Amino acid sequence: MSIKVYLAGPEVFLANAREILNAKAELARKAGFLPISPGDLEIPPAPTKKGMGLSISAIDEQMMLEADAIIANLTPFRGVAADVGTAYELGFMCGQGKHAFAYTNVAHDHHQRVLTYYEGAVVADSQGHRRGPDGLSVEDFEMIDNLMLHGGVERRNGTVVVHDAAEDAIYTDLTGFERVLAIAAAKLL
Amino acid sequence: MSIKVYLAGPEVFLANAREILNAKAELARKAGFLPISPGDLEIPPAPTKKGMGLSISAIDEQMMLEADAIIANLTPFRGVAADVGTAYELGFMCGQGKHAFAYTNVAHDHHQRVLTYYEGAVVADSQGHRRGPDGLSVEDFEMIDNLMLHGGVERRNGTVVVHDAAEDAIYTDLTGFERVLAIAAAKLL
Repeated sequence: MSIKVYLAGPEVFLANAREILNAKAELARKAGFLPISPGDLEIPPAPTKKGMGLSISAIDEQMMLEADAIIANLTPFRGVAADVGTAYELGFMCGQGKHAFAYTNVAHDHHQRVLTYYEGAVVADSQGHRRGPDGLSVEDFEMIDNLMLHGGVERRNGTVVVHDAAEDAIYTDLTGFERVLAIAAAKLL
Repeated sequence: MSIKVYLAGPEVFLANAREILNAKAELARKAGFLPISPGDLEIPPAPTKKGMGLSISAIDEQMMLEADAIIANLTPFRGVAADVGTAYELGFMCGQGKHAFAYTNVAHDHHQRVLTYYEGAVVADSQGHRRGPDGLSVEDFEMIDNLMLHGGVERRNGTVVVHDAAEDAIYTDLTGFERVLAIAAAKLL
């Protein structure tokens, strides 16, 4: 029986999204999986922008209901953290009790990126909690992103692969994806 | 039978997190719900930072498994989008088929915030898709954030409340939370 894996990540926003999604699907098939990605299915036309968004949401959730596992690309997107759509999808699969794996193409972990975001202006408060100038706590759990994401993967026997991609290839470099595919195949197939 | 609602949001990162979480829990109780929030339970000590993160992930997921509904605070966090931990939690509850509601304290929608992020430098490509200088597509689904989040709530009969809070109160103003609580109570109780 083949295992269906949902390929989540911000590559859907690229100009060459279809090319990258096809390349990921091909690698997943070579690893022995049945891949499924956002954009694989026709979106029924809707009369409004919001109706269109709701249609895409419905189709992507349907794909996830049918999938056995997720590989989430948690590479930071427009800022310090992963794409929130991908974070939702990772949570959706974990909430269903499915298998979860992840990778990132940025080697600096969550803590290092938050320090960069605050340009180093992080100080300890009277209780010893480190905070940015906006008062928000700066966490360091030695994880690649928020503990719910990284923890959600590792706590269900998944693996988070970290690859240090070139800055102009963080959404297109598939090295980390290939590594996590091999790990997922060894665990699930 | 009382309905248990999980209160998700970036207020856990505030210096006065406990105070805000208590205020939200009190409002939820007054609305007729049984509230539960991250931080309500003791985290068992762990020998490493990562072990601590994994413990918190386990406890928060356990609370969500026991909850019937989520109210997610999707106010933007450290940038253009919602907190990825909250996005994961919203997905986790939707993946379980639970009730989902959300609010944001920032009135500018996702599209407006992305335009601000790119300082207006958004142009249409040869296929008519609008993109930022980094090549990433600029979507406009008339939603407060990524379509998976907003769509996930609205498609399961939830409501997304938008409140225009003062800039220095976006994580502490509870007006939008009270409005969404009243809507959730009318629908679920």
